[in-house]
Amino acid sequence: MASVQDIAVSAVINFISALVFLLAFAIVRLQPINDRVYFPKWYLKGIRASPRSSGSFVNKFVNLDFRTYIRFLNWMPAALKMPEQELIGHAGLDSAVYIRIYLLGLKIFVPITALSFAVLVPVNWTSGETLDHIEDLTFSNIDKLSISNIPSGSKRFWAHVLMAYVYTFWTFYILYKEYKTISTMRLHFLASKKRRPDQFTVLVRNVPPDPDESVSEHVEHFFRVNHSDHYLSHQVVYNANKLAELVEKKKSSHNWLTYYQTRYERNPEKKPKIKTGFWGLWGKSVDAIDYYTTEIEKLTEEEAEEREKVICDPNAIVSAAFVSFNSRWGAAVCAQTQQSRNPTIWLTEWAPEPRDVYWDNLSIPYIQLSVRRLLMAVALFFLTFFFMIPIGFVQAFASIDGIRKVLPFLKPLIDMDVVKSFVQGFLPGIVLKIFLILLPMILMTMSKIEGFTSLSSLDRRSAAKYHLFVIVNVFFGSIITGAAFEQLERFLHQSPTEIPKTIGVTLPMKATFFITFIMVDGWAGIAAEILRLVPLVMFHIKNTFLVKTDHDREQAMDPGSLNFSVSEPRLQLYFLLGLVYSVVTPILLPFIIVFFAFAYMVYRHQIINVYDQKYESGASFWPDVNRRILIGLGISQLLLIGLLSTKDASQSTPLLIVLTILTIWFHNFCKGRFESIFVKFPLQDAVVKDTVERTTEPNFNLKEYLHDAYLHPVLKGVEFEVSKEVDDEESNSLVATKRTSRWSSKTVSNATSEDQKMVSEARLVL
Amino acid sequence: MASVQDIAVSAVINFISALVFLLAFAIVRLQPINDRVYFPKWYLKGIRASPRSSGSFVNKFVNLDFRTYIRFLNWMPAALKMPEQELIGHAGLDSAVYIRIYLLGLKIFVPITALSFAVLVPVNWTSGETLDHIEDLTFSNIDKLSISNIPSGSKRFWAHVLMAYVYTFWTFYILYKEYKTISTMRLHFLASKKRRPDQFTVLVRNVPPDPDESVSEHVEHFFRVNHSDHYLSHQVVYNANKLAELVEKKKSSHNWLTYYQTRYERNPEKKPKIKTGFWGLWGKSVDAIDYYTTEIEKLTEEEAEEREKVICDPNAIVSAAFVSFNSRWGAAVCAQTQQSRNPTIWLTEWAPEPRDVYWDNLSIPYIQLSVRRLLMAVALFFLTFFFMIPIGFVQAFASIDGIRKVLPFLKPLIDMDVVKSFVQGFLPGIVLKIFLILLPMILMTMSKIEGFTSLSSLDRRSAAKYHLFVIVNVFFGSIITGAAFEQLERFLHQSPTEIPKTIGVTLPMKATFFITFIMVDGWAGIAAEILRLVPLVMFHIKNTFLVKTDHDREQAMDPGSLNFSVSEPRLQLYFLLGLVYSVVTPILLPFIIVFFAFAYMVYRHQIINVYDQKYESGASFWPDVNRRILIGLGISQLLLIGLLSTKDASQSTPLLIVLTILTIWFHNFCKGRFESIFVKFPLQDAVVKDTVERTTEPNFNLKEYLHDAYLHPVLKGVEFEVSKEVDDEESNSLVATKRTSRWSSKTVSNATSEDQKMVSEARLVL
Repeated sequence: MASVQDIAVSAVINFISALVFLLAFAIVRLQPINDRVYFPKWYLKGIRASPRSSGSFVNKFVNLDFRTYIRFLNWMPAALKMPEQELIGHAGLDSAVYIRIYLLGLKIFVPITALSFAVLVPVNWTSGETLDHIEDLTFSNIDKLSISNIPSGSKRFWAHVLMAYVYTFWTFYILYKEYKTISTMRLHFLASKKRRPDQFTVLVRNVPPDPDESVSEHVEHFFRVNHSDHYLSHQVVYNANKLAELVEKKKSSHNWLTYYQTRYERNPEKKPKIKTGFWGLWGKSVDAIDYYTTEIEKLTEEEAEEREKVICDPNAIVSAAFVSFNSRWGAAVCAQTQQSRNPTIWLTEWAPEPRDVYWDNLSIPYIQLSVRRLLMAVALFFLTFFFMIPIGFVQAFASIDGIRKVLPFLKPLIDMDVVKSFVQGFLPGIVLKIFLILLPMILMTMSKIEGFTSLSSLDRRSAAKYHLFVIVNVFFGSIITGAAFEQLERFLHQSPTEIPKTIGVTLPMKATFFITFIMVDGWAGIAAEILRLVPLVMFHIKNTFLVKTDHDREQAMDPGSLNFSVSEPRLQLYFLLGLVYSVVTPILLPFIIVFFAFAYMVYRHQIINVYDQKYESGASFWPDVNRRILIGLGISQLLLIGLLSTKDASQSTPLLIVLTILTIWFHNFCKGRFESIFVKFPLQDAVVKDTVERTTEPNFNLKEYLHDAYLHPVLKGVEFEVSKEVDDEESNSLVATKRTSRWSSKTVSNATSEDQKMVSEARLVL
Repeated sequence: MASVQDIAVSAVINFISALVFLLAFAIVRLQPINDRVYFPKWYLKGIRASPRSSGSFVNKFVNLDFRTYIRFLNWMPAALKMPEQELIGHAGLDSAVYIRIYLLGLKIFVPITALSFAVLVPVNWTSGETLDHIEDLTFSNIDKLSISNIPSGSKRFWAHVLMAYVYTFWTFYILYKEYKTISTMRLHFLASKKRRPDQFTVLVRNVPPDPDESVSEHVEHFFRVNHSDHYLSHQVVYNANKLAELVEKKKSSHNWLTYYQTRYERNPEKKPKIKTGFWGLWGKSVDAIDYYTTEIEKLTEEEAEEREKVICDPNAIVSAAFVSFNSRWGAAVCAQTQQSRNPTIWLTEWAPEPRDVYWDNLSIPYIQLSVRRLLMAVALFFLTFFFMIPIGFVQAFASIDGIRKVLPFLKPLIDMDVVKSFVQGFLPGIVLKIFLILLPMILMTMSKIEGFTSLSSLDRRSAAKYHLFVIVNVFFGSIITGAAFEQLERFLHQSPTEIPKTIGVTLPMKATFFITFIMVDGWAGIAAEILRLVPLVMFHIKNTFLVKTDHDREQAMDPGSLNFSVSEPRLQLYFLLGLVYSVVTPILLPFIIVFFAFAYMVYRHQIINVYDQKYESGASFWPDVNRRILIGLGISQLLLIGLLSTKDASQSTPLLIVLTILTIWFHNFCKGRFESIFVKFPLQDAVVKDTVERTTEPNFNLKEYLHDAYLHPVLKGVEFEVSKEVDDEESNSLVATKRTSRWSSKTVSNATSEDQKMVSEARLVL
């Protein structure tokens, strides 16, 4: 157990490291050369011009104005300055609401902390009888402030029960108020939005096959009959995955061609050669320029063929369509009603924004969807509880003996002392780390297999899965030692009343561990986030070796985005810790408050200056956030029951069970009161907007406007933009250009967006 | 433990008692005097005339045609003769589908029984090693046929696991097929129905208050704006509960007046007197005719006043309305969409049939509804698990000592030996029995408090509550001795893996108990149902003392109805028993098959000849039936896991857990595939019906048709029909007439329908 001194030392270290990060950030960000790393959002908006376009040569790279260094923390007030309305306009509602989660943490925990220090800390401190007598257990001073300091059966526990009530109702109150505010914000946001295709469009899935009609005709006839006054047009969905692949391949070849051409131009003596085999490592050596030229010709032909095929072949049309209506009312009605007597066909739902559509999943039949969800649920269970088994297996394999056995030719190498100690000391940890880095991708893949049709819903589902993983493996995994599946087995053989006791009794002892965790992950981690070390390094690598055109430079700057599917569940851990320890060890609360306050500022800065969201869902994730905080509250109450019943205060159990039931009820109440605002579009608002629009623009041609809004992006006839020649000023060494996949990820939709997610997720994983 | 002989004896006894009931039924029903007891349905339909209107005097009361007695079982083929389509037309879809549940039992269990006897019985029988050695445990011969006969760790258990798989998939297959059939039947039924008000009407609740407009104006404006093309008219809901009370009171006074007038006419010497005090037991003695005449005058005045008040006072209008549309499409759209941005106001749902509306619950605000549901959920929990505590308390009070203490003046009476033994022997049992008789009413009251707006949904909710009670207190209560709250406590202190073991291990031993239970409750109980002893006696009592007019006689015959809220959960117990014992003790299955076959015939006969349903919900209870059978299946699988793991065959656990997961998945699949057919009305069908109707009756005045369909029945201006003079032929003694509450239950809606439910439920409770 760590003592107060240990905690203090750790606090100082982490505080200093956070400070170092912040100082580094302050210095690095002021250099013009890094401007695109720290203000990409403004570049993307086209508002900010490169500060290097003026001034002396040195000034272009290094900031020599020392006055700016003195105000090295001035980004903080700047971040807080932008009013919320402007923030929503600037960064979107998703981001604006996301940082409100941190604010919510402050709103919940600041009063709770004040109360805890006013009431519980004195109650605990003045009851100093128990721990002084116990010599064998290593209780620290911190425990003198915690519930551990109170002797079994003491009447003082009523103070804790009372506080549990107060905290619960306070949390309810704040959550309710916040839910209400965010509902209003969402409705206001949706109402004030300009005309957008998704307001008029419904995604229809599982169009039943018809022997006499094509999918397109069938859809048209169906909606002409059943929504006769409102149907406007429809857009069938093409299965363009192969075409997207070809386009992608051609683009890559094009990039290579440009690269070799540039090389040849600079060094005309030596014709560039490449090997045709795997990754250019072996195979026949051929002339690179010729090779890619023929390659591109071939691909262009294939692409044209495939494009022809996709558009003409009826089999390339999947059983889904985007149906548009002549009013928001018509679309709202169609999205919310059941069309056919068989509820597994003609499924209608709101169309996501065009850029939010996940095209690959539009054509999954109902029964297959049902089987997929079952399989993924089972897989998630095994992943959560048994992931240590394959990891352990790989770790065993990655040991000295394992390597010696399987790769005997490495024997001389690994027998070296340095290598040996590295393998023994780090390899198992690295294996686990790699798994943890890959985990969000695995969860995202699982969500994709489940068949969700929009990126935002994929994010939300992945977040739910990750939240389960964090609760089981980080929270409970830290409290009870042993792998998750061992815990699971132990719990299966314990009575339901024993489980909270087992966990509850170890709770106070783990407080110091979690305090350290908060400082490392929360304080220093957040400070590292603002420094953006990985994007900084990546930008400079790309800028040096790959950037050829302005467009390339735009690609090279990786603004990243709030990765909801990873960061939100990790954030929930802090709510959980705060709620659990608010009654047990209040000393932990200030650390959480510092985290929330600091993170709020950092992320507010980031969404203003850095992040670029991929889609806008109108804060549709809020019901999940609300639910997860309430799950945390419920866990905290159950653990308190367990803890108190090991302290001979089990007469408080019924009182606390009432609290748990109230929590469940409050969740259901919130769900009934607010959730549909995030799912449905009320007719009243639809009518209002329709009427306004009809009055102001009576002659607007909606059909034209919706014409190809929901065409698969690869079919939209976007051709490659001819790259403008690079401007020398910025590219230090003119090695051109294997473009990053950003542009393609926009064009070919989501085929390669995982790569980026992976990078940003990698940064966020502990 | 009962041996085979005991079972055989019990079987014979129950078989004979069933036969006695059937014989009694055959004889009694052929007497013309009982015709109205056994064929009320036909009288209500106006098809059947009294057989007593012709023939000799004796023939009017007793059937002397001995030929008819020979064919005393001929009601059975007669009951089976009516084809299903005709049955639906005759008795409604609810009844026709209800008896299909029995048929479903046969479809599931006949093949399972055949397989069990072909495979499992030989497997169990030939493994006769274990039980021969155990002398101290009283295993019966029946156990030689059960799984108990197989030694621990035997490989033979694989046969049971395999069979569990086969039975599960067979059940899935049959359930899926049945769900599909019933969906089709429902859709066909809805489609073939003639025009009905509820097809065009939506119930709107939680109309928000408006300072400037009345509820009626507010509703009209809202729907004129938001459903401009489809809104037709609306009907506000009056709070007419007090008026209904007055009408009821006046009617009762009217009955008494008629009674005393008749008495005075017959015996003019003696003026009838009554006492004005409590129940006519004490108080001033006054002239009865004068008293009731003034009473009626007073009530008539009050009623007129109240009627005025209800119609004119804006406060008598509750915040709900029935809104009608000019097409089914418009109504379907409005019922399925969200109207306002606040999802707790302007709540729309399909209007129930006018006779299905539960008027009292139409005006409960959202938050109150939410609190009510919470309270009722908690109450249900305590009722289910802790009902024995108050019962035990009353039982203690109802003991000899308790009575001596509280009512000392009864001491001489209860010290008599006969009374003493009666009190000691029967009173505790009677207390419990009274509770069990009252239970369905308690559950119904709880459902009413929860705020459901139609009788059918009240029935369904009560059934769900009763099902929980039956599973906990009858099924688990019989397997594990001790009151439910003791079991609950024990289970809370046991691990989740221990619970199925504890129950599983006692399962085979309880088989004989359940066989006896099936024979008593299932065989003899069903035979008693067809005899209708209580309605028979009641009819003759009423006919002798109360009937004055033909209309009274119509009232006196109590057709009763299928009481879904009680009979369906009890029926589910047989499914549960069958599924649980199909693998464990297959010898139980034939008893269940006999029950299902016999009950099917009896209930088919009853719905054809006797029952008169109060409403028609179009089989909307089927999702519940399907779910509960799957709950039974899940319980059977969990118990098998427990049983096998006590038999050293726990390697089968993963296989059986897969089965449980599949069961949950199948439930979700069915829900997704079919449930919305029972909840929503697809637009496609609405359009078809609208189009057909518009073509065939282009000039139909829908507004006129819907004019007062949803007016509170007490406001419909129904006046008392003047009773025609009684026809002497049938009334043996002319004592007139305190009318039964049937007529009023139709008129004043549900105010008194509980009484009848109580009677029919009392019949059904064990």
